[in-house]
Amino acid sequence: MKEFEVIKEFFTAQPVNRKDVAMGIGDDCALIRASDSKYIAITTDTLVCGVHFPTDTPARAIGHKAVAVNLSDLAAMGAEPAWISVAVTLPTVDREWLAEFTAGIFELTEYFNVQLIGGDTTSGPLSITITAQGTVPQGKALCRNGAGNGDWVYVTGEIGEAGLALQALREQVSLSPREMQHAMDALNYPKPQVLAGQVVREYASAAIDISDGLLADLTHLCQASTLGISLDVNDLPIAPVLLNKLGEEGAARLALTAGDDYQLIFTVPDTNKVALETELKQANIKSSCIGQMNKSQEIIISRGETRLSFAESGFEHFS
Amino acid sequence: MKEFEVIKEFFTAQPVNRKDVAMGIGDDCALIRASDSKYIAITTDTLVCGVHFPTDTPARAIGHKAVAVNLSDLAAMGAEPAWISVAVTLPTVDREWLAEFTAGIFELTEYFNVQLIGGDTTSGPLSITITAQGTVPQGKALCRNGAGNGDWVYVTGEIGEAGLALQALREQVSLSPREMQHAMDALNYPKPQVLAGQVVREYASAAIDISDGLLADLTHLCQASTLGISLDVNDLPIAPVLLNKLGEEGAARLALTAGDDYQLIFTVPDTNKVALETELKQANIKSSCIGQMNKSQEIIISRGETRLSFAESGFEHFS
Repeated sequence: MKEFEVIKEFFTAQPVNRKDVAMGIGDDCALIRASDSKYIAITTDTLVCGVHFPTDTPARAIGHKAVAVNLSDLAAMGAEPAWISVAVTLPTVDREWLAEFTAGIFELTEYFNVQLIGGDTTSGPLSITITAQGTVPQGKALCRNGAGNGDWVYVTGEIGEAGLALQALREQVSLSPREMQHAMDALNYPKPQVLAGQVVREYASAAIDISDGLLADLTHLCQASTLGISLDVNDLPIAPVLLNKLGEEGAARLALTAGDDYQLIFTVPDTNKVALETELKQANIKSSCIGQMNKSQEIIISRGETRLSFAESGFEHFS
Repeated sequence: MKEFEVIKEFFTAQPVNRKDVAMGIGDDCALIRASDSKYIAITTDTLVCGVHFPTDTPARAIGHKAVAVNLSDLAAMGAEPAWISVAVTLPTVDREWLAEFTAGIFELTEYFNVQLIGGDTTSGPLSITITAQGTVPQGKALCRNGAGNGDWVYVTGEIGEAGLALQALREQVSLSPREMQHAMDALNYPKPQVLAGQVVREYASAAIDISDGLLADLTHLCQASTLGISLDVNDLPIAPVLLNKLGEEGAARLALTAGDDYQLIFTVPDTNKVALETELKQANIKSSCIGQMNKSQEIIISRGETRLSFAESGFEHFS
């Protein structure tokens, strides 16, 4: 039973009765009506040691990442982050570890003007649950279900390098010390696309962050919007090191499936395309148009004129 | 290093810079300004299997208690609960367990009109982190630091029975099956004093919920308010079964030190005493006046005219 099935069967059993809940379970954040003009966006993510990060991950990286993955969910709603609560379960009280862990938290909260407002400190196997909250003007929140037929599909930044780091840790690929350092930084210190979310919310119809992998998160967006996507792997902003190490096909495969990128996917109606691209350039945010929404309810992947069939084992060309 | 020291040294290192944060770390809830007229109160509590509840605790009790301890923190601020996020880490996906666990959650959320708005489901050692939020009119939030010299100190309900259940589980006391059932219900299904919190907020100067034990939580309130308390053990609302099983001294000792009661302690200026007691009676809320705030910065415990000295080992009479 997968996580999504568990959530659907057990946690969405309660109907949404409160009128102040604009969005309940099922998007990157919940939305509650805080005042006449704004929503509060709320998200919760848990990182469990040995599951979401390797046991030898530096404490500073754990603190950074625990905050980053939550701010990434806020970014995907177009929300401005404001407050976090940190619940940490610790096997032992190690002052050096705690100093590094909290430094990792505070370097992000200070950068984004986020206030740590509470939490809990308990004894047990190492795990961190953060609840992050932010604000978004009513009518500007970016939900997964807003994409329209014909909307253009974009992704911010570059993708695949965090996945490459995981492959290297599993010794499935060999990296130079410098490449390894860069890839581990991508894995351990993701940069939540908070500014991008706020720029994009003025023009986009839908958004989601890449946590499960580009293909998996595109699928969530398509299902929520009851649409499909045509995308061209030539347009994917694959990190150059992937192409060097894995070749064109291996790089595309990893970029499509690796999680932990924490870039944003968003969809834009044709009428907003030029204005959005201009704004993103002015804000110095890298973005790539990778495809277009369609009515197929499928994800159709091509390389130029050639349609590809994607399976766990990789691409297969259609005959 | 105790939890409070860890929080103080590592988590309160960041100064509160945001003007929308009315109360940060250090009370039962944080308070953020949601609009011109109301605060949102936010609290987070983690329950770890084997630490906060015995490994054989029924799933429904775990779900109930995880919500109850958080609503109790909201009650202690005088807040009306509204929304919760549930992060659960599970060793395995057990459908029967999940059905019972979520039933335990929903029986409280439905009773208090609280909406489950999100969370996370992850794989790992069993633990639950809930973030609960509610609203409270600005100027009505009950903080720990508001008690005044001469204010009367109250506690709701009865105390000590959850502690008795823990003693029985450790075979330190023998209960009849019926007594055991009743005590286990007190431990597993605490009733958050949400209504009491909302009645009390109109009259009280400070409040805290009893999670660590009456004496420990009174100490938190005294430290925050820079005051002391004189209390008479004859006035404590000790659950009658404690007196039967442990005698007068043993019962008072357990009632003062046992946690998990989730009753409210609150302080009331003398001018509001009669009005508050009238309101509580009308709302059918049991409460007991157990003492009075003073300037000593100590907790002075007496039985009638006799002052007691309290230590881990029990009471010692002053010579």
